[in-house]
Amino acid sequence: MPIDPSAVGTPLPPVETTYTDRDVILYALGVGAEASDLHLVYENGGLRVLPTFAVIPAFPALAGLGAVMTFNPMLLLHGEQRVVLHHPIPASGTVRTEPHVSAVWDKGRGAVVVVEADSYGVGGSLDGEVIFSNTFTTFLRGEGGFGGERGPSGPRNVPPDRPPDAEVRDRTLPQQAALYRLSGDLNPLHIDPQFAALGGFPRPILHGLCTFGFVGRAALRALCDGDPDRLRAFAARFAAAVYPGDEIVTSVWREGQGRAVLRAATGDGTVVLERASVTYS
Amino acid sequence: MPIDPSAVGTPLPPVETTYTDRDVILYALGVGAEASDLHLVYENGGLRVLPTFAVIPAFPALAGLGAVMTFNPMLLLHGEQRVVLHHPIPASGTVRTEPHVSAVWDKGRGAVVVVEADSYGVGGSLDGEVIFSNTFTTFLRGEGGFGGERGPSGPRNVPPDRPPDAEVRDRTLPQQAALYRLSGDLNPLHIDPQFAALGGFPRPILHGLCTFGFVGRAALRALCDGDPDRLRAFAARFAAAVYPGDEIVTSVWREGQGRAVLRAATGDGTVVLERASVTYS
Repeated sequence: MPIDPSAVGTPLPPVETTYTDRDVILYALGVGAEASDLHLVYENGGLRVLPTFAVIPAFPALAGLGAVMTFNPMLLLHGEQRVVLHHPIPASGTVRTEPHVSAVWDKGRGAVVVVEADSYGVGGSLDGEVIFSNTFTTFLRGEGGFGGERGPSGPRNVPPDRPPDAEVRDRTLPQQAALYRLSGDLNPLHIDPQFAALGGFPRPILHGLCTFGFVGRAALRALCDGDPDRLRAFAARFAAAVYPGDEIVTSVWREGQGRAVLRAATGDGTVVLERASVTYS
Repeated sequence: MPIDPSAVGTPLPPVETTYTDRDVILYALGVGAEASDLHLVYENGGLRVLPTFAVIPAFPALAGLGAVMTFNPMLLLHGEQRVVLHHPIPASGTVRTEPHVSAVWDKGRGAVVVVEADSYGVGGSLDGEVIFSNTFTTFLRGEGGFGGERGPSGPRNVPPDRPPDAEVRDRTLPQQAALYRLSGDLNPLHIDPQFAALGGFPRPILHGLCTFGFVGRAALRALCDGDPDRLRAFAARFAAAVYPGDEIVTSVWREGQGRAVLRAATGDGTVVLERASVTYS
Protein backbone atom coordinates (compact mmCIF):
# COMPACT_ATOMS: atom_id res chain seq x y z
CA MET A 1 0.00 0.00 0.00
CA PRO A 2 2.32 2.79 -1.22
CA ILE A 3 1.13 6.37 -1.58
CA ASP A 4 -2.06 6.26 -3.60
CA PRO A 5 -3.54 9.43 -5.08
CA SER A 6 -6.97 7.81 -5.03
CA ALA A 7 -6.91 8.19 -1.23
CA VAL A 8 -8.08 11.77 -1.75
CA GLY A 9 -11.49 12.19 -0.20
CA THR A 10 -11.09 9.19 2.08
CA PRO A 11 -12.38 9.91 5.56
CA LEU A 12 -10.12 8.95 8.47
CA PRO A 13 -11.59 7.68 11.73
CA PRO A 14 -13.19 10.46 13.79
CA VAL A 15 -11.64 11.23 17.16
CA GLU A 16 -13.38 12.58 20.26
CA THR A 17 -11.25 14.55 22.68
CA THR A 18 -12.14 15.97 26.06
CA TYR A 19 -9.96 18.70 27.53
CA THR A 20 -9.99 20.73 30.72
CA ASP A 21 -8.83 24.20 31.68
CA ARG A 22 -5.67 22.54 33.00
CA ASP A 23 -4.92 21.31 29.45
CA VAL A 24 -5.57 24.80 28.09
CA ILE A 25 -3.16 26.37 30.59
CA LEU A 26 -0.53 23.68 30.06
CA TYR A 27 -0.69 24.38 26.32
CA ALA A 28 -0.37 28.14 26.86
CA LEU A 29 2.74 27.64 29.01
CA GLY A 30 4.00 25.18 26.39
CA VAL A 31 3.97 27.91 23.75
CA GLY A 32 5.53 30.57 25.95
CA ALA A 33 2.67 32.32 27.76
CA GLU A 34 3.93 34.21 30.80
CA ALA A 35 2.69 34.07 34.37
CA SER A 36 1.38 37.61 33.97
CA ASP A 37 -0.82 36.58 31.03
CA LEU A 38 -3.59 35.81 33.50
CA HIS A 39 -6.24 35.42 30.79
CA LEU A 40 -4.15 32.54 29.37
CA VAL A 41 -2.85 30.79 32.50
CA TYR A 42 -5.36 31.37 35.32
CA GLU A 43 -8.60 29.45 35.52
CA ASN A 44 -10.33 31.89 37.91
CA GLY A 45 -9.97 35.01 35.84
CA GLY A 46 -11.99 34.31 32.70
CA LEU A 47 -9.63 31.88 31.04
CA ARG A 48 -9.24 32.42 27.28
CA VAL A 49 -7.95 29.83 24.83
CA LEU A 50 -5.15 30.55 22.38
CA PRO A 51 -6.46 29.99 18.83
CA THR A 52 -3.54 27.68 18.03
CA PHE A 53 -4.79 25.33 20.76
CA ALA A 54 -7.06 24.14 17.93
CA VAL A 55 -4.28 21.80 16.79
CA ILE A 56 -4.29 19.88 20.09
CA PRO A 57 -7.67 18.11 20.08
CA ALA A 58 -7.33 17.48 16.32
CA PHE A 59 -3.77 16.12 16.37
CA PRO A 60 -4.67 12.54 17.40
CA ALA A 61 -6.82 12.29 14.26
CA LEU A 62 -3.64 12.26 12.14
CA ALA A 63 -2.85 8.79 13.45
CA GLY A 64 -5.66 7.51 11.23
CA LEU A 65 -3.49 8.19 8.20
CA GLY A 66 -1.78 4.86 8.80
CA ALA A 67 -5.07 3.12 8.00
CA VAL A 68 -5.19 4.37 4.42
CA MET A 69 -1.51 4.43 3.41
CA THR A 70 1.74 2.95 4.66
CA PHE A 71 4.89 4.97 5.19
CA ASN A 72 7.79 5.16 7.59
CA PRO A 73 6.69 7.61 10.29
CA MET A 74 10.37 8.45 10.95
CA LEU A 75 10.43 10.04 7.47
CA LEU A 76 7.34 12.17 8.00
CA LEU A 77 7.91 15.91 8.25
CA HIS A 78 5.28 18.40 9.21
CA GLY A 79 5.26 20.74 6.22
CA GLU A 80 2.49 23.26 6.77
CA GLN A 81 -0.31 23.95 9.19
CA ARG A 82 -3.47 25.99 8.95
CA VAL A 83 -6.08 26.64 11.60
CA VAL A 84 -9.40 28.40 11.03
CA LEU A 85 -11.44 29.56 13.99
CA HIS A 86 -15.21 29.55 13.51
CA HIS A 87 -15.91 30.29 17.18
CA PRO A 88 -13.78 31.18 20.20
CA ILE A 89 -12.56 27.89 21.66
CA PRO A 90 -14.31 27.01 24.94
CA ALA A 91 -12.03 26.80 28.00
CA SER A 92 -13.00 23.15 28.49
CA GLY A 93 -15.17 20.64 26.73
CA THR A 94 -15.38 17.79 24.26
CA VAL A 95 -14.85 18.07 20.51
CA ARG A 96 -15.32 15.50 17.80
CA THR A 97 -12.81 15.78 14.95
CA GLU A 98 -13.72 14.43 11.52
CA PRO A 99 -10.65 14.22 9.28
CA HIS A 100 -10.25 13.29 5.63
CA VAL A 101 -7.42 13.16 3.11
CA SER A 102 -7.86 16.28 1.02
CA ALA A 103 -4.84 16.09 -1.30
CA VAL A 104 -1.96 13.83 -2.31
CA TRP A 105 0.88 15.28 -4.39
CA ASP A 106 3.95 13.69 -5.93
CA LYS A 107 6.90 16.00 -5.38
CA GLY A 108 9.48 13.59 -6.80
CA ARG A 109 11.71 13.46 -3.70
CA GLY A 110 8.70 12.87 -1.55
CA ALA A 111 4.95 12.84 -1.28
CA VAL A 112 2.75 15.53 0.16
CA VAL A 113 -0.36 14.32 1.96
CA VAL A 114 -2.87 16.86 3.19
CA VAL A 115 -5.39 16.06 5.92
CA GLU A 116 -8.26 18.42 6.64
CA ALA A 117 -10.22 18.07 9.84
CA ASP A 118 -13.26 19.87 11.19
CA SER A 119 -13.77 19.78 14.95
CA TYR A 120 -17.35 19.90 16.24
CA GLY A 121 -18.56 20.74 19.71
CA VAL A 122 -20.04 17.84 21.67
CA GLY A 123 -22.47 19.11 24.28
CA GLY A 124 -22.31 22.62 25.62
CA SER A 125 -23.45 25.74 23.79
CA LEU A 126 -21.61 24.81 20.57
CA ASP A 127 -22.99 21.27 20.34
CA GLY A 128 -22.86 20.10 16.72
CA GLU A 129 -21.21 23.26 15.42
CA VAL A 130 -17.81 23.40 13.78
CA ILE A 131 -15.63 25.26 16.28
CA PHE A 132 -12.36 25.09 14.34
CA SER A 133 -10.80 23.47 11.31
CA ASN A 134 -7.25 22.22 10.79
CA THR A 135 -5.25 21.53 7.67
CA PHE A 136 -2.20 19.36 8.33
CA THR A 137 0.22 19.18 5.41
CA THR A 138 2.76 16.40 5.80
CA PHE A 139 5.80 15.66 3.66
CA LEU A 140 6.78 12.02 3.38
CA ARG A 141 10.45 11.86 2.50
CA GLY A 142 11.33 9.24 -0.13
CA GLU A 143 7.70 8.41 -0.91
CA GLY A 144 7.44 10.36 -4.18
CA GLY A 145 7.71 9.05 -7.74
CA PHE A 146 4.40 7.23 -7.76
CA GLY A 147 3.27 9.05 -10.90
CA GLY A 148 0.93 11.54 -9.24
CA GLU A 149 0.48 15.23 -9.95
CA ARG A 150 2.90 17.74 -8.47
CA GLY A 151 0.19 19.99 -7.12
CA PRO A 152 0.24 23.77 -6.77
CA SER A 153 3.50 25.59 -6.26
CA GLY A 154 4.85 29.08 -6.38
CA PRO A 155 5.30 31.54 -3.58
CA ARG A 156 2.38 32.54 -1.39
CA ASN A 157 2.34 34.99 1.47
CA VAL A 158 5.68 36.50 0.55
CA PRO A 159 6.46 39.52 2.72
CA PRO A 160 6.55 42.85 0.87
CA ASP A 161 9.87 44.52 0.17
CA ARG A 162 9.86 46.82 3.20
CA PRO A 163 10.77 46.53 6.85
CA PRO A 164 8.19 44.70 8.97
CA ASP A 165 5.48 46.70 10.69
CA ALA A 166 6.10 44.84 13.93
CA GLU A 167 8.65 42.49 15.38
CA VAL A 168 7.99 40.28 18.40
CA ARG A 169 10.78 38.51 20.25
CA ASP A 170 10.30 35.42 22.41
CA ARG A 171 12.86 33.24 24.09
CA THR A 172 12.02 29.55 24.23
CA LEU A 173 13.03 27.64 27.36
CA PRO A 174 15.64 24.89 27.37
CA GLN A 175 12.80 22.66 28.63
CA GLN A 176 10.23 24.04 26.12
CA ALA A 177 9.86 20.81 24.14
CA ALA A 178 9.69 18.71 27.33
CA LEU A 179 6.82 20.93 28.42
CA TYR A 180 5.06 21.21 25.06
CA ARG A 181 5.00 17.45 24.53
CA LEU A 182 2.74 17.06 27.58
CA SER A 183 0.03 18.58 25.36
CA GLY A 184 -0.02 15.34 23.40
CA ASP A 185 2.70 15.03 20.75
CA LEU A 186 5.04 12.55 22.46
CA ASN A 187 7.30 12.00 19.43
CA PRO A 188 10.69 11.12 21.01
CA LEU A 189 12.43 13.28 18.40
CA HIS A 190 11.68 16.21 20.69
CA ILE A 191 13.28 14.86 23.85
CA ASP A 192 15.45 11.82 23.21
CA PRO A 193 18.96 12.62 21.86
CA GLN A 194 19.21 9.16 20.28
CA PHE A 195 16.02 9.64 18.30
CA ALA A 196 17.12 13.12 17.31
CA ALA A 197 20.39 11.66 15.98
CA LEU A 198 18.44 9.05 13.99
CA GLY A 199 16.47 11.92 12.46
CA GLY A 200 19.69 13.68 11.52
CA PHE A 201 19.60 16.37 14.21
CA PRO A 202 22.44 17.14 16.64
CA ARG A 203 19.97 17.32 19.54
CA PRO A 204 16.22 17.19 20.16
CA ILE A 205 14.29 19.82 18.23
CA LEU A 206 11.24 21.84 19.19
CA HIS A 207 7.90 20.67 17.80
CA GLY A 208 6.95 22.60 14.65
CA LEU A 209 3.54 23.12 16.21
CA CYS A 210 5.19 24.61 19.30
CA THR A 211 6.87 27.20 17.08
CA PHE A 212 3.46 27.63 15.43
CA GLY A 213 2.01 28.43 18.86
CA PHE A 214 4.75 30.93 19.68
CA VAL A 215 4.24 32.74 16.37
CA GLY A 216 0.46 32.66 16.71
CA ARG A 217 0.83 34.26 20.13
CA ALA A 218 3.17 36.86 18.63
CA ALA A 219 0.53 37.61 15.97
CA LEU A 220 -2.09 38.13 18.67
CA ARG A 221 0.13 40.65 20.43
CA ALA A 222 1.13 42.49 17.24
CA LEU A 223 -2.29 42.57 15.58
CA CYS A 224 -5.12 41.78 18.02
CA ASP A 225 -4.18 43.53 21.28
CA GLY A 226 -3.60 40.04 22.66
CA ASP A 227 -7.29 39.11 22.29
CA PRO A 228 -7.51 35.40 21.28
CA ASP A 229 -11.04 35.83 19.90
CA ARG A 230 -9.92 38.25 17.17
CA LEU A 231 -7.78 35.77 15.27
CA ARG A 232 -9.74 34.08 12.49
CA ALA A 233 -7.13 32.00 10.68
CA PHE A 234 -3.41 31.33 10.80
CA ALA A 235 -1.42 29.35 8.25
CA ALA A 236 2.32 28.78 8.01
CA ARG A 237 5.00 26.63 6.45
CA PHE A 238 7.76 25.06 8.55
CA ALA A 239 11.14 25.94 7.08
CA ALA A 240 13.78 24.81 9.62
CA ALA A 241 14.10 23.35 13.08
CA VAL A 242 14.03 25.44 16.23
CA TYR A 243 16.09 24.15 19.15
CA PRO A 244 14.81 24.51 22.72
CA GLY A 245 16.40 27.65 24.15
CA ASP A 246 16.43 29.47 20.80
CA GLU A 247 14.95 32.91 20.42
CA ILE A 248 12.01 33.20 18.00
CA VAL A 249 11.72 36.54 16.24
CA THR A 250 8.40 37.06 14.47
CA SER A 251 8.18 39.74 11.79
CA VAL A 252 4.73 41.01 10.85
CA TRP A 253 3.64 42.92 7.75
CA ARG A 254 0.10 44.28 7.77
CA GLU A 255 -1.66 44.01 4.41
CA GLY A 256 -4.84 45.82 5.38
CA GLN A 257 -8.39 44.51 5.68
CA GLY A 258 -7.55 42.29 8.64
CA ARG A 259 -4.80 40.41 6.91
CA ALA A 260 -1.07 40.17 7.55
CA VAL A 261 1.84 38.06 6.43
CA LEU A 262 4.50 36.82 8.86
CA ARG A 263 7.89 35.26 8.95
CA ALA A 264 9.74 33.88 11.96
CA ALA A 265 13.45 33.34 12.41
CA THR A 266 15.71 32.27 15.23
CA GLY A 267 18.13 34.74 16.77
CA ASP A 268 20.84 33.87 14.24
CA GLY A 269 18.55 34.75 11.33
CA THR A 270 17.59 31.21 10.28
CA VAL A 271 14.04 31.37 8.90
CA VAL A 272 12.03 28.71 10.74
CA LEU A 273 8.48 29.59 9.72
CA GLU A 274 7.66 31.23 6.40
CA ARG A 275 4.80 32.01 4.03
CA ALA A 276 2.67 32.64 7.06
CA SER A 277 -0.58 34.55 7.01
CA VAL A 278 -3.16 35.55 9.54
CA THR A 279 -6.61 36.98 9.16
CA TYR A 280 -8.08 38.81 12.11
CA SER A 281 -10.80 41.22 13.12
CA MET B 1 -15.64 25.43 66.45
CA PRO B 2 -12.32 27.16 67.24
CA ILE B 3 -9.05 25.29 67.45
CA ASP B 4 -9.61 22.34 69.76
CA PRO B 5 -6.67 20.32 71.11
CA SER B 6 -8.94 17.33 71.48
CA ALA B 7 -8.92 17.05 67.69
CA VAL B 8 -5.62 15.18 68.03
CA GLY B 9 -6.05 11.67 66.74
CA THR B 10 -9.12 12.52 64.69
CA PRO B 11 -9.01 10.87 61.28
CA LEU B 12 -9.74 13.07 58.26
CA PRO B 13 -11.60 11.67 55.26
CA PRO B 14 -9.40 9.38 53.14
CA VAL B 15 -8.64 10.50 49.58
CA GLU B 16 -7.96 8.30 46.57
CA THR B 17 -5.82 9.79 43.82
CA THR B 18 -4.92 8.37 40.43
CA TYR B 19 -1.95 9.82 38.59
CA THR B 20 -0.26 9.13 35.28
CA ASP B 21 3.28 9.46 33.95
CA ARG B 22 2.17 12.80 32.49
CA ASP B 23 1.46 14.04 36.04
CA VAL B 24 4.85 12.77 37.19
CA ILE B 25 6.64 14.61 34.36
CA LEU B 26 4.61 17.78 34.85
CA TYR B 27 5.60 17.75 38.53
CA ALA B 28 9.27 17.23 37.69
CA LEU B 29 9.22 20.22 35.32
CA GLY B 30 7.32 22.14 37.98
CA VAL B 31 10.22 21.73 40.41
CA GLY B 32 12.93 22.52 37.89
CA ALA B 33 13.88 19.24 36.21
CA GLU B 34 15.71 19.86 32.96
CA ALA B 35 14.99 18.41 29.53
CA SER B 36 18.23 16.42 29.78
CA ASP B 37 17.03 14.70 32.98
CA LEU B 38 15.49 11.99 30.83
CA HIS B 39 14.82 9.70 33.80
CA LEU B 40 12.56 12.43 35.23
CA VAL B 41 10.84 13.83 32.14
CA TYR B 42 10.63 11.07 29.51
CA GLU B 43 8.07 8.30 29.75
CA ASN B 44 9.89 5.93 27.36
CA GLY B 45 13.20 5.76 29.14
CA GLY B 46 12.38 4.17 32.49
CA LEU B 47 10.65 7.12 34.11
CA ARG B 48 11.59 7.66 37.77
CA VAL B 49 9.55 9.63 40.26
CA LEU B 50 11.05 12.38 42.40
CA PRO B 51 10.56 11.48 46.09
CA THR B 52 8.97 14.87 46.78
CA PHE B 53 6.19 13.94 44.36
CA ALA B 54 4.82 12.19 47.46
CA VAL B 55 3.21 15.46 48.52
CA ILE B 56 1.03 15.63 45.38
CA PRO B 57 -1.40 12.71 45.82
CA ALA B 58 -1.59 13.45 49.56
CA PHE B 59 -2.18 17.19 49.30
CA PRO B 60 -5.96 17.00 48.63
CA ALA B 61 -6.35 15.18 51.96
CA LEU B 62 -5.54 18.44 53.78
CA ALA B 63 -8.89 19.86 52.66
CA GLY B 64 -10.51 17.54 55.21
CA LEU B 65 -9.11 19.71 58.00
CA GLY B 66 -12.06 22.05 57.50
CA ALA B 67 -14.35 19.25 58.71
CA VAL B 68 -12.83 19.11 62.20
CA MET B 69 -11.94 22.75 62.88
CA THR B 70 -12.82 26.15 61.47
CA PHE B 71 -10.25 28.74 60.51
CA ASN B 72 -9.71 31.37 57.84
CA PRO B 73 -7.78 29.60 55.06
CA MET B 74 -6.27 32.96 54.03
CA LEU B 75 -4.41 32.93 57.36
CA LEU B 76 -3.02 29.44 56.95
CA LEU B 77 0.71 29.20 56.37
CA HIS B 78 2.52 26.05 55.45
CA GLY B 79 5.08 25.72 58.22
CA GLU B 80 6.93 22.48 57.75
CA GLN B 81 6.80 19.42 55.55
CA ARG B 82 8.18 15.94 55.92
CA VAL B 83 8.04 13.05 53.49
CA VAL B 84 9.13 9.50 54.21
CA LEU B 85 9.56 7.05 51.36
CA HIS B 86 8.83 3.42 52.16
CA HIS B 87 9.08 2.32 48.52
CA PRO B 88 10.12 3.99 45.28
CA ILE B 89 7.01 5.78 43.96
CA PRO B 90 5.50 4.01 40.93
CA ALA B 91 5.48 6.07 37.71
CA SER B 92 1.68 5.86 37.57
CA GLY B 93 -1.06 4.38 39.69
CA THR B 94 -3.64 4.95 42.38
CA VAL B 95 -2.94 5.69 46.03
CA ARG B 96 -5.28 5.97 48.97
CA THR B 97 -4.24 8.54 51.54
CA GLU B 98 -5.42 8.18 55.14
CA PRO B 99 -4.80 11.37 57.11
CA HIS B 100 -5.27 12.21 60.76
CA VAL B 101 -4.61 15.17 63.03
CA SER B 102 -1.45 14.24 64.91
CA ALA B 103 -0.80 17.39 66.96
CA VAL B 104 -2.33 20.74 67.89
CA TRP B 105 -0.15 23.34 69.61
CA ASP B 106 -0.91 26.77 70.96
CA LYS B 107 1.87 29.14 70.00
CA GLY B 108 0.18 32.26 71.35
CA ARG B 109 0.20 34.26 68.10
CA GLY B 110 -1.19 31.29 66.28
CA ALA B 111 -1.99 27.63 66.32
CA VAL B 112 0.06 24.81 64.89
CA VAL B 113 -1.92 21.91 63.46
CA VAL B 114 -0.07 18.84 62.26
CA VAL B 115 -1.62 16.35 59.83
CA GLU B 116 0.04 13.02 59.19
CA ALA B 117 -1.01 10.95 56.22
CA ASP B 118 0.00 7.51 55.02
CA SER B 119 -0.54 6.77 51.34
CA TYR B 120 -1.26 3.14 50.37
CA GLY B 121 -1.00 1.54 46.96
CA VAL B 122 -4.32 0.59 45.36
CA GLY B 123 -3.82 -2.25 42.90
CA GLY B 124 -0.46 -2.91 41.29
CA SER B 125 2.51 -4.56 42.97
CA LEU B 126 2.27 -2.33 46.08
CA ASP B 127 -1.45 -2.94 46.71
CA GLY B 128 -2.24 -2.30 50.35
CA GLU B 129 1.31 -1.26 51.28
CA VAL B 130 2.29 2.16 52.59
CA ILE B 131 4.33 3.71 49.77
CA PHE B 132 4.98 7.06 51.42
CA SER B 133 4.00 9.16 54.43
CA ASN B 134 3.55 12.90 54.69
CA THR B 135 3.58 15.22 57.66
CA PHE B 136 2.03 18.61 56.91
CA THR B 137 2.62 21.21 59.61
CA THR B 138 0.39 24.24 59.21
CA PHE B 139 0.48 27.50 61.12
CA LEU B 140 -2.85 29.25 61.60
CA ARG B 141 -2.18 32.93 62.17
CA GLY B 142 -4.29 34.51 64.90
CA GLU B 143 -5.78 31.22 66.05
CA GLY B 144 -3.64 30.79 69.20
CA GLY B 145 -4.53 31.56 72.78
CA PHE B 146 -6.97 28.70 73.24
CA GLY B 147 -5.11 27.43 76.30
CA GLY B 148 -3.31 24.53 74.67
CA GLU B 149 0.25 23.36 75.14
CA ARG B 150 3.06 25.09 73.26
CA GLY B 151 4.57 21.87 71.98
CA PRO B 152 8.23 21.11 71.36
CA SER B 153 10.61 23.89 70.44
CA GLY B 154 14.29 24.47 70.19
CA PRO B 155 16.53 24.21 67.19
CA ARG B 156 16.70 21.00 65.19
CA ASN B 157 18.84 20.24 62.17
CA VAL B 158 21.07 23.24 62.68
CA PRO B 159 23.98 23.21 60.21
CA PRO B 160 27.40 22.71 61.80
CA ASP B 161 29.78 25.62 62.08
CA ARG B 162 31.76 24.93 58.91
CA PRO B 163 31.31 25.62 55.21
CA PRO B 164 28.79 23.36 53.47
CA ASP B 165 30.03 20.16 51.85
CA ALA B 166 28.06 20.92 48.72
CA GLU B 167 26.15 23.81 47.23
CA VAL B 168 23.58 23.42 44.45
CA ARG B 169 22.25 26.39 42.51
CA ASP B 170 18.95 26.41 40.63
CA ARG B 171 17.20 29.24 38.90
CA THR B 172 13.40 29.20 39.09
CA LEU B 173 11.48 30.36 36.03
CA PRO B 174 9.33 33.48 36.00
CA GLN B 175 6.46 31.09 35.18
CA GLN B 176 7.51 28.48 37.79
CA ALA B 177 4.46 28.95 40.03
CA ALA B 178 2.09 29.00 37.02
CA LEU B 179 3.57 25.64 36.03
CA TYR B 180 3.79 24.11 39.50
CA ARG B 181 0.16 24.88 40.32
CA LEU B 182 -0.97 22.55 37.52
CA SER B 183 0.18 19.75 39.85
CA GLY B 184 -2.83 20.52 42.03
CA ASP B 185 -2.33 23.43 44.45
CA LEU B 186 -4.43 26.11 42.73
CA ASN B 187 -4.23 28.64 45.58
CA PRO B 188 -4.54 32.02 43.78
CA LEU B 189 -1.84 33.45 46.06
CA HIS B 190 0.66 31.93 43.63
CA ILE B 191 -0.61 33.54 40.43
CA ASP B 192 -3.06 36.36 41.09
CA PRO B 193 -1.46 39.70 42.06
CA GLN B 194 -4.63 40.80 43.87
CA PHE B 195 -4.64 37.72 46.10
CA ALA B 196 -0.92 38.13 46.71
CA ALA B 197 -1.56 41.71 47.85
CA LEU B 198 -4.33 40.52 50.21
CA GLY B 199 -1.80 38.10 51.68
CA GLY B 200 0.67 40.94 52.19
CA PHE B 201 3.04 40.09 49.34
CA PRO B 202 4.13 42.51 46.62
CA ARG B 203 3.55 39.87 43.95
CA PRO B 204 2.59 36.20 43.68
CA ILE B 205 4.94 33.90 45.56
CA LEU B 206 6.18 30.44 44.74
CA HIS B 207 4.49 27.52 46.51
CA GLY B 208 6.47 26.40 49.56
CA LEU B 209 6.13 22.85 48.29
CA CYS B 210 7.64 23.93 44.96
CA THR B 211 10.71 25.18 46.83
CA PHE B 212 10.59 21.89 48.75
CA GLY B 213 10.77 20.05 45.41
CA PHE B 214 13.70 22.15 44.17
CA VAL B 215 15.65 21.51 47.36
CA GLY B 216 14.77 17.81 47.36
CA ARG B 217 16.09 17.59 43.81
CA ALA B 218 19.25 19.42 44.91
CA ALA B 219 19.68 16.89 47.73
CA LEU B 220 19.40 14.03 45.24
CA ARG B 221 22.17 15.53 43.14
CA ALA B 222 24.44 16.36 46.06
CA LEU B 223 23.97 13.12 48.00
CA CYS B 224 22.41 10.35 45.89
CA ASP B 225 24.01 10.67 42.43
CA GLY B 226 20.60 11.88 41.28
CA ASP B 227 18.97 8.51 42.05
CA PRO B 228 15.41 9.14 43.34
CA ASP B 229 15.23 5.71 44.99
CA ARG B 230 18.06 6.48 47.43
CA LEU B 231 16.25 9.23 49.31
CA ARG B 232 14.45 7.87 52.36
CA ALA B 233 13.14 10.98 54.08
CA PHE B 234 13.21 14.74 53.68
CA ALA B 235 11.94 17.29 56.17
CA ALA B 236 12.15 21.06 56.12
CA ARG B 237 10.74 24.23 57.59
CA PHE B 238 9.59 27.10 55.38
CA ALA B 239 11.26 30.33 56.47
CA ALA B 240 10.48 32.95 53.81
CA ALA B 241 8.80 33.34 50.44
CA VAL B 242 10.55 32.60 47.16
CA TYR B 243 9.44 34.66 44.17
CA PRO B 244 9.21 33.08 40.72
CA GLY B 245 12.45 33.87 38.92
CA ASP B 246 14.54 33.76 42.11
CA GLU B 247 17.63 31.63 42.38
CA ILE B 248 17.54 28.87 45.01
CA VAL B 249 20.90 28.00 46.54
CA THR B 250 20.89 24.80 48.56
CA SER B 251 23.71 24.19 51.04
CA VAL B 252 24.32 20.63 52.18
CA TRP B 253 26.24 19.37 55.22
CA ARG B 254 26.84 15.63 55.41
CA GLU B 255 26.53 14.23 58.91
CA GLY B 256 27.55 10.66 58.13
CA GLN B 257 25.52 7.45 58.23
CA GLY B 258 23.26 8.55 55.37
CA ARG B 259 22.15 11.74 57.01
CA ALA B 260 22.62 15.38 56.04
CA VAL B 261 21.25 18.75 57.04
CA LEU B 262 20.38 21.42 54.50
CA ARG B 263 19.53 25.06 54.22
CA ALA B 264 18.30 26.94 51.17
CA ALA B 265 18.48 30.64 50.43
CA THR B 266 17.64 32.87 47.51
CA GLY B 267 20.41 34.59 45.57
CA ASP B 268 20.33 37.60 47.90
CA GLY B 269 20.98 35.39 50.93
CA THR B 270 17.44 35.28 52.34
CA VAL B 271 16.99 31.88 54.01
CA VAL B 272 13.83 30.35 52.57
CA LEU B 273 14.05 26.77 53.83
CA GLU B 274 15.78 25.86 57.07
CA ARG B 275 16.18 23.09 59.64
CA ALA B 276 16.08 20.65 56.76
CA SER B 277 17.29 17.10 56.96
CA VAL B 278 17.50 14.19 54.60
CA THR B 279 18.22 10.55 55.17
CA TYR B 280 19.44 8.52 52.23
CA SER B 281 21.15 5.30 51.30
